Amino acid sequence: MTGGFERSTNSLRDRAVRPNGPTLTSVAEACGVSRQTVSNIFNAPHKVQHETRARVEAEIARQGYRPNRSARSLRTHRSHLLGYCVPPPPRGGNAVMDGFLHAVTDAAERRGYHVLLFTQPLDGTGPRSAYEALIGHRAVDGFILSDTTTGDGRQAWLSKRNVPFAAFGRRFVEPEIGSWVDVDGAAGTASAVAHLATLGHRRLAFIGWPIGSGVGDDRCRGFVEATAAASLEVAGIERAEDRIDVGRSLAARLLSLTDPPTAIVCVSDLLALGCDAALRDRGLTPGRDIAVTGFDDSPAAGLPAVGLTTLRQPIDRAGEHVVRLLVDRLADTRTGTAGPADEQILLEPTLVVRTSTTR
Amino acid sequence: MTGGFERSTNSLRDRAVRPNGPTLTSVAEACGVSRQTVSNIFNAPHKVQHETRARVEAEIARQGYRPNRSARSLRTHRSHLLGYCVPPPPRGGNAVMDGFLHAVTDAAERRGYHVLLFTQPLDGTGPRSAYEALIGHRAVDGFILSDTTTGDGRQAWLSKRNVPFAAFGRRFVEPEIGSWVDVDGAAGTASAVAHLATLGHRRLAFIGWPIGSGVGDDRCRGFVEATAAASLEVAGIERAEDRIDVGRSLAARLLSLTDPPTAIVCVSDLLALGCDAALRDRGLTPGRDIAVTGFDDSPAAGLPAVGLTTLRQPIDRAGEHVVRLLVDRLADTRTGTAGPADEQILLEPTLVVRTSTTR
Repeated sequence: MTGGFERSTNSLRDRAVRPNGPTLTSVAEACGVSRQTVSNIFNAPHKVQHETRARVEAEIARQGYRPNRSARSLRTHRSHLLGYCVPPPPRGGNAVMDGFLHAVTDAAERRGYHVLLFTQPLDGTGPRSAYEALIGHRAVDGFILSDTTTGDGRQAWLSKRNVPFAAFGRRFVEPEIGSWVDVDGAAGTASAVAHLATLGHRRLAFIGWPIGSGVGDDRCRGFVEATAAASLEVAGIERAEDRIDVGRSLAARLLSLTDPPTAIVCVSDLLALGCDAALRDRGLTPGRDIAVTGFDDSPAAGLPAVGLTTLRQPIDRAGEHVVRLLVDRLADTRTGTAGPADEQILLEPTLVVRTSTTR
Repeated sequence: MTGGFERSTNSLRDRAVRPNGPTLTSVAEACGVSRQTVSNIFNAPHKVQHETRARVEAEIARQGYRPNRSARSLRTHRSHLLGYCVPPPPRGGNAVMDGFLHAVTDAAERRGYHVLLFTQPLDGTGPRSAYEALIGHRAVDGFILSDTTTGDGRQAWLSKRNVPFAAFGRRFVEPEIGSWVDVDGAAGTASAVAHLATLGHRRLAFIGWPIGSGVGDDRCRGFVEATAAASLEVAGIERAEDRIDVGRSLAARLLSLTDPPTAIVCVSDLLALGCDAALRDRGLTPGRDIAVTGFDDSPAAGLPAVGLTTLRQPIDRAGEHVVRLLVDRLADTRTGTAGPADEQILLEPTLVVRTSTTR
């Protein structure tokens, strides 16, 4: 009885496997089960009886069958891809982005997703067209945003279209739109001020980004509040573009004051590296003559020639959270129940102390 | 006559478009053409008569129809995705990788592809399992390799399985396997030597990577050949790990020689930054007392505090070439004709002169 069955499946097996390689059908026929059962092995293994499962898995292994990702996508109406727009090459800025990308890719894989990269067109057709094309072609299930700007239009645009997304970085206008994870910039600069106060500094200055930059305003607020709380004197607050040469000339101006600061808190490593250069221009040693702090812990900050005290962003945790926020939302859309409320997460940066404050 | 037809298509249109959004069928029915004709608009527009094409395109625009990427993939047996393994976060190394990723993504998009990111599992299951899973699930059409190592097993492994790939970086053992684009390291260090000779240096040293590192051996060869050709003296050749502290101690050793070099050529910016630190340790000024060159033009090299003369890799062109090599191979597989011979491209790096050689 089994003998006849085995012969029969063998002939089916030969017919099914040879011409086009193993398929769902060739596995199902070889095992004498339905195609749905084989499909369940991949998508709902708990629905398959133990002995059937063992038999089908052995046959899958024997044939070397792998489910076609595109077929799975058509069936589940999912691409299992998360879209991420690669920012243009930084050359000095955006020092944490490569670590973020690794963290996001790793976190996505652990949840059965991959990351699809795209760029914003540089031909003036605007950023939305890239997002729109991917949505239109159903190429991704949702988006991970980064490099968010103060008045970023993407969050509202995606929300309106019910496209799932999660952002690394807040909008500072209407921050309640969408789920995001961000680093608490105000807490970061406040901890730099506390560190300087402990070292005995009583007269501080701040070099920040232009007013209206949400991230810059947030970090500036931390400085203002912490100096006020500790009754420290503020020698000056400068706001300008995030460039080394800008930091260099603003620091030079602060050092020329009748009563210059003994410590300069910077909104970024780049501006702090400019301060470092301005000090050296005058024969001063950072950390001995004037203390300097940055923000980001970019690779340059750790160089022996620089040794910049700075704030390190918990980039692995940020990547993990942003993927979790997005994938929760996708799982949610699938079950068809009402989505969870948007979730917003603030992570604390860590002060990394180097010679620029403690030589 | 046309009136009745129009009413009929209108009612079909209403039925087809409303419940599930526009589909291939809803467009076909609204235009009174076959589904194949609508499909051809996207995949073989030359097969569609001019007036039909205009009519179908107008209807596609009216309904806002976009072909489903998964459906297209099933039909064409293509995912239109190129797999790329994100290297683990560098923190100082791999300074050119974010620029490479942007270049690759941009070049892929211009050819109708996107980049799918994945990581190598860190749990000891080995790098191949990640490639194998993506091939097995038909998640990508081919791979872009980077961070190739001297005895890299991936190229031979992928070749044997007829999986299309192209690499940024050579294997130095059996370099003939597969298509690749790489930067000519020997030409780079040779141009650094020529620059130093022009400045009057006659006694040089080299700090490189361990023997057996293909990239390191190549860059060392350029130094050895160029110093010999210009009859320059070689004060020493050190080979060690790519770390700042290692460069610092090796440079200290070279500077302690009875007859120390007047210039040190380094295989990387990281080792050159170590040299820079060793010079400062002894109160020497790089570029005035001793000249130092690096390789990569990492962001740190351009800092005012550092000013490192170094070699810049043409990373945009490398990204463009590697995508072209891979996509040509894919187009080729599709037509079923024999593939083109593997193509190998060497690009010249550019010497960027800063204060570390010319203060």
